[in-house]
Amino acid sequence: MEAEIEFIPGGTVTSAKGFQAGATFTGINKKAKHNLDLGILFSEAPSATVGLFTANKIKAAPVALSQERLPSKSVKAVVVNSGCANAGTGEPGLGDAVSMAALAAEKIGVPPESVLVASTGVIGQRLNLELLRAGIEQVTLSSDGGHALAQAIMTTDTVSKEVAVRVRRGEFIVGGVAKGSGMIHPQLGTLLSFLTTDAKVDMDFLGMALRNAVDISFNMVSIDGDTSPNDTVLLMANGLAGNGLIRQRTKAAAAFQQALNQVCIYLAKAIARDGEGASKLIEVAVSGASSKASARLAARTVVSSSLVKAAVHGSDPNWGRIIAALGRSGARVVESKIGLSIGGIRLVEGGIALPFDKKKAVLALNDGEVSISINLNLGRAGATAWGCDLSSEYVAINSEYTT
Amino acid sequence: MEAEIEFIPGGTVTSAKGFQAGATFTGINKKAKHNLDLGILFSEAPSATVGLFTANKIKAAPVALSQERLPSKSVKAVVVNSGCANAGTGEPGLGDAVSMAALAAEKIGVPPESVLVASTGVIGQRLNLELLRAGIEQVTLSSDGGHALAQAIMTTDTVSKEVAVRVRRGEFIVGGVAKGSGMIHPQLGTLLSFLTTDAKVDMDFLGMALRNAVDISFNMVSIDGDTSPNDTVLLMANGLAGNGLIRQRTKAAAAFQQALNQVCIYLAKAIARDGEGASKLIEVAVSGASSKASARLAARTVVSSSLVKAAVHGSDPNWGRIIAALGRSGARVVESKIGLSIGGIRLVEGGIALPFDKKKAVLALNDGEVSISINLNLGRAGATAWGCDLSSEYVAINSEYTT
Repeated sequence: MEAEIEFIPGGTVTSAKGFQAGATFTGINKKAKHNLDLGILFSEAPSATVGLFTANKIKAAPVALSQERLPSKSVKAVVVNSGCANAGTGEPGLGDAVSMAALAAEKIGVPPESVLVASTGVIGQRLNLELLRAGIEQVTLSSDGGHALAQAIMTTDTVSKEVAVRVRRGEFIVGGVAKGSGMIHPQLGTLLSFLTTDAKVDMDFLGMALRNAVDISFNMVSIDGDTSPNDTVLLMANGLAGNGLIRQRTKAAAAFQQALNQVCIYLAKAIARDGEGASKLIEVAVSGASSKASARLAARTVVSSSLVKAAVHGSDPNWGRIIAALGRSGARVVESKIGLSIGGIRLVEGGIALPFDKKKAVLALNDGEVSISINLNLGRAGATAWGCDLSSEYVAINSEYTT
Repeated sequence: MEAEIEFIPGGTVTSAKGFQAGATFTGINKKAKHNLDLGILFSEAPSATVGLFTANKIKAAPVALSQERLPSKSVKAVVVNSGCANAGTGEPGLGDAVSMAALAAEKIGVPPESVLVASTGVIGQRLNLELLRAGIEQVTLSSDGGHALAQAIMTTDTVSKEVAVRVRRGEFIVGGVAKGSGMIHPQLGTLLSFLTTDAKVDMDFLGMALRNAVDISFNMVSIDGDTSPNDTVLLMANGLAGNGLIRQRTKAAAAFQQALNQVCIYLAKAIARDGEGASKLIEVAVSGASSKASARLAARTVVSSSLVKAAVHGSDPNWGRIIAALGRSGARVVESKIGLSIGGIRLVEGGIALPFDKKKAVLALNDGEVSISINLNLGRAGATAWGCDLSSEYVAINSEYTT
């Protein structure tokens, strides 16, 4: 049975009970979009917290530190900056991450080990601790500070990404923020995401629920095929909703999973839609795959293909590129069985072109959301992946980043 | 001992004894660059011929047909068109490929089974056999027709790619043509390449030599991460040089391998340099890897990274992106051991940024050939990969292809 889940208008990472946040400008991110580049997320009660981190073998210092501190039953805060990734900075960088946590801990009066850290920005530069120290001093926490936090973590993002949902007549809330918008690929397809809930959740189930949700959301997003050394997803559960402990294989667990899935999928799509230079969200839905793994490979490969992305950008119904991407995806495909449609317009059946109204197809591709549906006709497995078109703007953004 | 190998000025696929070629315009490739879109390569003597084909599970009809006819001791000709890939065309497409071979065979008076076919262009459209038939009729073969053939296979290529080398005082010649310039990734990183030699070569060794050469050349090129269903590399040896049969593990074999390597590397670099929208050739040389496989993965991943490519385009010495690409490559890397330089300027040592003259680094990146050297300091294996920068022009080319 589906749980009753409603989106909270204006919902964010501080919508759940007992979460506060605040942000300020330190000067570390010289291109800060809202004059904010440092944020703190705070939980009034110690939070059961789990995390998932980058698959990149080069891990940023904040990733190494947060990973070491998790899982934990008593996280109190997360401090995060944009503009500098504190990655490729070796031992000194690790020291900076420890200092950053300690400065935030001192500011809010909690143990240093109860604070997690995250960073996003240019790789290979040290954090300016003096700017950090001065900035952290200035942060004011409030229960509607989630919006400021969402803005402080933006780099090339053009919009902040925030959402919250309420489960079953207000029993508990799940919310979160995320940022993209480059170096995004399905090995944790987000740079940063902080998720919160006031539900009381068993630690083991919490970790499992996060993996499940991430698998069908952030891990199905690709923007440019690169994987950041800073990828971090944190889920904090502070138990302040007053519900009974949610354990695996219960109705409450199913409802929690469903809520978490919706939050993560919302944020994942927001990241894809706001990919660097993107003008369109692309959704690739694969059905009829012989296995889940095949379906995922097929969907992710098509949505990642530069040629497919460029064709969508130009509203060119060049389905041959989709077929070519399927063929190299590693998924099981039989050419003569493939069915394909774009924006509901059937282009291919049994692996062969159907006559189609090109004007209608171009129109479907002109939409801000382009849906590509592929039926492999080999089995019953399916998967959906999200990405964006490839524009000249992507090149402009990424050829003038550090200079 | 190194064999004496000299590049032949103006060398091409018909430089080796007994090869002829010719090309014409059929109208199939409406954007033909030199008013040529169909070519025939002919060997006066039956040629021992081997081929390597796309790793894409969706195989174009000409690939399926040529693959079926190889290896062979008696290939007489190859017929090739640009503008239409004859891929994604199912059984009818296969029939068209068979007809294409038969038309060429009839024209030049050889058995149909002795003719191979290749196509490049838009995927998902049928070949126009009437245009083909009329075109093939018009082809005139000559021993300097290699240049016309090289031009006839161009699509988004801006220059033709041709080369020939002579081994040891003229004993034999190896030459070839190739085309890029999109859908290029190291699963046979070329769309089409036709290689010829007048050497007499043992069949088994011929196949082995081609695999060896392709492994360090076409399989180390990436332009856009996509793999075409049409990738085809053919090597024809007609034995007309009059040398003794070249067998494995002889001095002559080593010389032949060396010549073939040079031809393939020359063509591979030409493809990378002429990648769609490219303004720069990028060479990534990895040394100190713990295994050959690791070195290859590392080099190919860095050269394929959209973010690295965009940074090179903007002459931005953003080495953090190179480190990030290394980290996700699957190669064994230890961050604290990585050394990195661009254009001879050392940027990273022991995984940490060195102070460097930014103006000099930008200057090195402004060059038409940008070399990135990475020492993983873990072992003795190395590999080199080639690619190109990512420009707005790439997006322009690929968002307006079929329409």
